[in-house]
Amino acid sequence: MLINLTSDCKRNELFMTDHNLATLEYAQERDQQDELAEFRTRFAIEDPELIYLDGNSLGRLPKATVALLRDAVERQWGARLIRSWNEGWLEAPLRIGNKIGQLLGAQPGEVTVADSTTVNLFKLALAAIRANPGRHKIVTDDLNFPSDLYALQGICQLLGADYHIEVVPSPDGIHGPVAGLAAAIDHDTALVTLSHTVFKSAYTYDMAAITALAQRGGAYMLWDLSHAAGAVLCDLQGANADLAIGCSYKYLNGGPGAPAFLYVRQDLQDRLANPVPGWMGQANLFDFAPAYDPAPGLQHFLTGTPPLLSTLAIEPGIDLLLAAGMDRVRAKSVQQTNYLVALWEQILAPLGFALNSPRAADQRGSHISLGHPEAWRIDQALIHGQKVLPDFRQPDNIRLGITPLYTSFEDIYQAVMRAKLVVTEGLYRHYSQRGAKVT
Amino acid sequence: MLINLTSDCKRNELFMTDHNLATLEYAQERDQQDELAEFRTRFAIEDPELIYLDGNSLGRLPKATVALLRDAVERQWGARLIRSWNEGWLEAPLRIGNKIGQLLGAQPGEVTVADSTTVNLFKLALAAIRANPGRHKIVTDDLNFPSDLYALQGICQLLGADYHIEVVPSPDGIHGPVAGLAAAIDHDTALVTLSHTVFKSAYTYDMAAITALAQRGGAYMLWDLSHAAGAVLCDLQGANADLAIGCSYKYLNGGPGAPAFLYVRQDLQDRLANPVPGWMGQANLFDFAPAYDPAPGLQHFLTGTPPLLSTLAIEPGIDLLLAAGMDRVRAKSVQQTNYLVALWEQILAPLGFALNSPRAADQRGSHISLGHPEAWRIDQALIHGQKVLPDFRQPDNIRLGITPLYTSFEDIYQAVMRAKLVVTEGLYRHYSQRGAKVT
Repeated sequence: MLINLTSDCKRNELFMTDHNLATLEYAQERDQQDELAEFRTRFAIEDPELIYLDGNSLGRLPKATVALLRDAVERQWGARLIRSWNEGWLEAPLRIGNKIGQLLGAQPGEVTVADSTTVNLFKLALAAIRANPGRHKIVTDDLNFPSDLYALQGICQLLGADYHIEVVPSPDGIHGPVAGLAAAIDHDTALVTLSHTVFKSAYTYDMAAITALAQRGGAYMLWDLSHAAGAVLCDLQGANADLAIGCSYKYLNGGPGAPAFLYVRQDLQDRLANPVPGWMGQANLFDFAPAYDPAPGLQHFLTGTPPLLSTLAIEPGIDLLLAAGMDRVRAKSVQQTNYLVALWEQILAPLGFALNSPRAADQRGSHISLGHPEAWRIDQALIHGQKVLPDFRQPDNIRLGITPLYTSFEDIYQAVMRAKLVVTEGLYRHYSQRGAKVT
Repeated sequence: MLINLTSDCKRNELFMTDHNLATLEYAQERDQQDELAEFRTRFAIEDPELIYLDGNSLGRLPKATVALLRDAVERQWGARLIRSWNEGWLEAPLRIGNKIGQLLGAQPGEVTVADSTTVNLFKLALAAIRANPGRHKIVTDDLNFPSDLYALQGICQLLGADYHIEVVPSPDGIHGPVAGLAAAIDHDTALVTLSHTVFKSAYTYDMAAITALAQRGGAYMLWDLSHAAGAVLCDLQGANADLAIGCSYKYLNGGPGAPAFLYVRQDLQDRLANPVPGWMGQANLFDFAPAYDPAPGLQHFLTGTPPLLSTLAIEPGIDLLLAAGMDRVRAKSVQQTNYLVALWEQILAPLGFALNSPRAADQRGSHISLGHPEAWRIDQALIHGQKVLPDFRQPDNIRLGITPLYTSFEDIYQAVMRAKLVVTEGLYRHYSQRGAKVT
């Protein structure tokens, strides 16, 4: 059987045969040929035996972050004290935002670090709806991250009974409802907002096509890039995207709960108002004027004082992605998710695992969801008995995150083999059902 | 001349005479008698000659924070990875919030760490106004921090033309307009919000009296405790306060831009709705239900994933305040600000410095503002030529922050003597006017 690969990894096709796919040697050979392999050494890997497949939830710690934070704490805070605000801190959100923008195909001055993903969604969604008066509908899908839906529900409650959300259902719980979205976007639609790469299945929308669909309908398009940034190729400028938000603690490796980012296309920046104005967005903030006077450009989308330590910690992970180059990161991600799908088909599908992610690599981000009736207990057995860290998403998804900067082909091979072992040996039976007290 | 002191420091009155007040020996004697002096050793003080009087803007680095952050970065993030969310991270905002609550006289479960001060103000002010329908006015004063005013302006823009803010002017730019507030609070007032201790003059409101005034008028009362927390005695429960917010990077020593906190009195928690709902406030968040179902109690005021490194860094500073005890911290603060006022009167007033803070210690927080026609250049001369770090607030205020855990009497003495030198020797003339390019 020859596995159907995308063009990105044609040169590896010769390896992908039934015969040698599921061997340690094959995985190791792929690792030896991996031109990004060196990047694994740039991360603090405490336990080399641990197979970490949850970088799509919390990215690993870059070694450079350890030194950077020590400097930020001991020199910048401890010794320079308040002076550090004038020695780089004040500019940090926009400066680091520009680097994130480079990963996303944005122009300088279009991306800033700010707040949390949900607060940013609230700010930009509300700003867009208010800039689109007379339209009362928000269109999204049921694959979107729940926190995004909660913020949208909050916005509708604020704006009044005329406003509502149309949540277009996915046809299969895996793929985005492209046709359904096209049908839902109408003359009453103020805003379309979607996760570009969805959190459960990793389905990935065609950013340019959906943006054009929204804009043709007279709506603003707001992308949540939380599972896309650092994982897939985004071209915000090429897609003429209006607005975007995302988090920096997943594939960007920015640290636990690291502040989020927001993108506003340049020509929209002075047309949209930040509904949560604050002094970080004020023109001449140290004049302390009593009336809000928004700074020009992107800055007025800032609100309060940013959490500096968590903000500064974002930068080294972005630098690693910039050094690797998103083209190469994406190419390796496609190779690795294809490899995982191939192993699933050969080894795990016969054991009752379902592929809950798209088969087509160009519709897929950098993680793979596998369903199984015993997914919860298998997940527990992998974590507690097999030194594999995936994560679990309701009701029966084991989510395996591929982070090309540090995930090896051997990691993937070993994870599949251990999942096989957990099922064939019945090891999962030692663990309790979800919700039950672990004995 | 015998300086008029509050009862807190009666036992030190004998020292406060014209004769010995302005001597190094007097300051050193006070330091020797200071029962909180040992706490200075718990902070990382890189340059012992630097006189840091800006702890009301950015508190110093507690030594324990260095070790805590190293563990948070290298072990919790680097080694434990995603598992740390179940090993303390998820609970951190409410757990650390409870400690802040102890400093403020709140009950357990009434304070949480969250977002930035301005985002929290936006959330709680909007929640209160929506819970008080039919009333359209927000009452505040012109001493309030401008970012608070900006957020209130944003709220009024969202709610529509019926809503407005009445900014009651201070009679003198120093003291709070208590009578004016009483007159402004009427049957149309939904919310009264004030900085408990104001950022420029340090005037401090009587929390119980003003809260009662607002409540008698049928309004909710929202306190900004940014310059009060860790500096003055707050008794949220005793004052029956409705709502409060504040920042943790000033007297709490939580680190640059450290996440803020919010307080909602227990009986209001399920009556008010968070207008920016998010998954951290969702009941059973890992069920990923599409409909927002607010968690009971304080938790539903959380929104997005908290910036963990900056959040965890808050705790050691709070622990130091709890160990010292707010009664003792406040007593020393009163002694020290009284001492500074006495030195001002004797040494600086004749040189053209005005006292822009209340004289009465019970109306004053833990910083002193001194006005001078040449304040900007004097401030520059102190920073760049005298190793004194105060801060400057428009148009002519030098703000001297007293942080009893690490400010010594000698610091205060030296700062005053150096300010005297800067003026008597004309050293400030070497510095440019504000806005001019420094030559």
